[in-house]
Amino acid sequence: MDYDKLALDLHKQFKGKITTKLRDTSTLDRTKLSAYYTPGVAAVSRAIANDHSLLPTYTWTNNLVAVISDGSAVLGLGNIGPEGSMPVMEGKALLFKHFAGIDAVPITLDVHTPDEIVATVKAIAPSFGAINLEDIAAPQCFEIEERLKAELSIPVFHDDQHGTAVVVLAGLINAMKLTGRNLRDCKIVVVGAGAAGTAIIKLLHHYAEPAIVAVDSKGAVSSQRTDLNDEKKALLAFTSNDVDGSLEEVIQGADIFIGVSKPGLLTPAMIDTMHDDAIIFALANPTPEVMPDIAKAAGAAIVATGRSDFPNQINNATAFPGIFRGALDNGVQKITDDHKIAAAEVIASLVDAPSADQIIPSVFDERLVPSIAAVIK
Amino acid sequence: MDYDKLALDLHKQFKGKITTKLRDTSTLDRTKLSAYYTPGVAAVSRAIANDHSLLPTYTWTNNLVAVISDGSAVLGLGNIGPEGSMPVMEGKALLFKHFAGIDAVPITLDVHTPDEIVATVKAIAPSFGAINLEDIAAPQCFEIEERLKAELSIPVFHDDQHGTAVVVLAGLINAMKLTGRNLRDCKIVVVGAGAAGTAIIKLLHHYAEPAIVAVDSKGAVSSQRTDLNDEKKALLAFTSNDVDGSLEEVIQGADIFIGVSKPGLLTPAMIDTMHDDAIIFALANPTPEVMPDIAKAAGAAIVATGRSDFPNQINNATAFPGIFRGALDNGVQKITDDHKIAAAEVIASLVDAPSADQIIPSVFDERLVPSIAAVIK
Repeated sequence: MDYDKLALDLHKQFKGKITTKLRDTSTLDRTKLSAYYTPGVAAVSRAIANDHSLLPTYTWTNNLVAVISDGSAVLGLGNIGPEGSMPVMEGKALLFKHFAGIDAVPITLDVHTPDEIVATVKAIAPSFGAINLEDIAAPQCFEIEERLKAELSIPVFHDDQHGTAVVVLAGLINAMKLTGRNLRDCKIVVVGAGAAGTAIIKLLHHYAEPAIVAVDSKGAVSSQRTDLNDEKKALLAFTSNDVDGSLEEVIQGADIFIGVSKPGLLTPAMIDTMHDDAIIFALANPTPEVMPDIAKAAGAAIVATGRSDFPNQINNATAFPGIFRGALDNGVQKITDDHKIAAAEVIASLVDAPSADQIIPSVFDERLVPSIAAVIK
Repeated sequence: MDYDKLALDLHKQFKGKITTKLRDTSTLDRTKLSAYYTPGVAAVSRAIANDHSLLPTYTWTNNLVAVISDGSAVLGLGNIGPEGSMPVMEGKALLFKHFAGIDAVPITLDVHTPDEIVATVKAIAPSFGAINLEDIAAPQCFEIEERLKAELSIPVFHDDQHGTAVVVLAGLINAMKLTGRNLRDCKIVVVGAGAAGTAIIKLLHHYAEPAIVAVDSKGAVSSQRTDLNDEKKALLAFTSNDVDGSLEEVIQGADIFIGVSKPGLLTPAMIDTMHDDAIIFALANPTPEVMPDIAKAAGAAIVATGRSDFPNQINNATAFPGIFRGALDNGVQKITDDHKIAAAEVIASLVDAPSADQIIPSVFDERLVPSIAAVIK
């Protein structure tokens, strides 16, 4: 399938992917216009000015998410800037509408420092019911999200981090059942210590405190290293931080490999040194750290990737529509680790008969959004 | 009509006024999702990253206006802040859609200094095809608009200033015909030297260089005054700046009164001192500077107000939908004084048989948007 040509053709034909429409589809006569705009709207504005909690009662913010990116780390494309990232952010808005009925507006930023991004998002925040940060480069993304969460009273969720982490945990919950393991007893190697890797490590730690070794391009992220930035130093609190060595060394005896890194990085020889019935989440996109057939031939029991053309796709769209649906509908101000774990457990539970080729429900499973939304409260 | 109750009820019933929908309303199967999002969208992003001029070809920015306010000068309500102003900005988005089919997104800002507002709007500008500034207090609004116009390559239009000025000029063009005057020979008194008053003075000056006296709460804005801020000093270049005195004094012999000020400020005694067949635009809202029946009884030939329940409503919605429609469709980067004059002439020409009670077409006249759009190029 030539997705490139189809994508260019469809985007040109429809002139983009989203549009606005009026909620009240009856004829707008003078009377209605006088209620929706001046003079009637003044009563609504006055009510909200006197009590800000009425904003979602009377305006579209009750169902509205800003999808915000500076285009600095777009999946598979890297730092392509705000203009280049717009189709991806508008695509995310399309997913919000399609899967969860949520109005989402893509906001691409022409500023890139944490101070500038935080200031801009805070400045426009009263316009929205929630903030989805997207495709912002690590390590800046961590500071940006933390500061916005602390300073805003609406949910702020960096989906590259937490959406991925939630779906990974959901998959692992079913993988544990299938291989008769308990996550807290597992040795896990996470390769890639960027946005997704960091969030996965923190969420798995919060869930079960398993033995985790983080690996970056220099090898294990250990307390012996002298080249760690602040974000990687912070990771040491969640990992087996005394383990040092190359991927080839630290993968030996591991139960679980989670890659959010580079194509082809995991070799059959490495898998051969892992624990029996190894679990491999090879999430580099579009080409995984190891292809599923190769991983299976080398002894892996369960393999997941980021791709829709293999079984067990780890797809953020499994999680974020329901998480935001719940946050908006239930007036949640902060999406916590406990919310993420609850979402992962719900996602895992929706696989009726887990098998090595089905540890994650289909992204089209219509139970996902209402079931997840119900636990984000 | 109790517009307050109707407005509160309708806003609550529909949970706001606008929503999003997908442009492609066919079923989104896996193939289409793979074209609208990953992996296909990467080709679209790459194309735009390489050539920013393709942004409107492939994304919704071709039809997208940001309606931006800090809520510091909301019509009839004053400084009510970003939350309180949201219903008005969402209402403006409704008008954009209803009258011109334009997608508009309300952005209410939690910052208020010119530096902060300029920085925020510049930061989010790549997300939009045009910027409508709205209800930002004078004098900050002047600096904000000028800086954004200079620094952005998409149209920036402060509708409180220029939308009002365009419709006022349109009304005056027909009023001139009806009273056998030539605008360049008229003596005009403009009361209120805020956003609208300033823009009206500048546009009338550019159009015909008539004799204009600006009046603020202290009297005529003259070169003898020592209390003028920079923006009012700048006005002296466009006015009969040697005229000093109170409104009562400077109104004597005037042909035209334009009020964007306070209810009841123009008395029958003052009108009596104006030139025969005086033209009165009493635009204070909701209560004009003089009620139409009183103005007529005092000798006015033509009276316009901001209200829909009297003849000759000066309503920005007559102008801005067509101006933005043209700017978006014709790739206009700056909306100039010449564009505004062309729009005013088109609006005036759409009154088939001008009369004292019809100098402006109805805001529901369907010829307005295409006719205005055709001259914004």
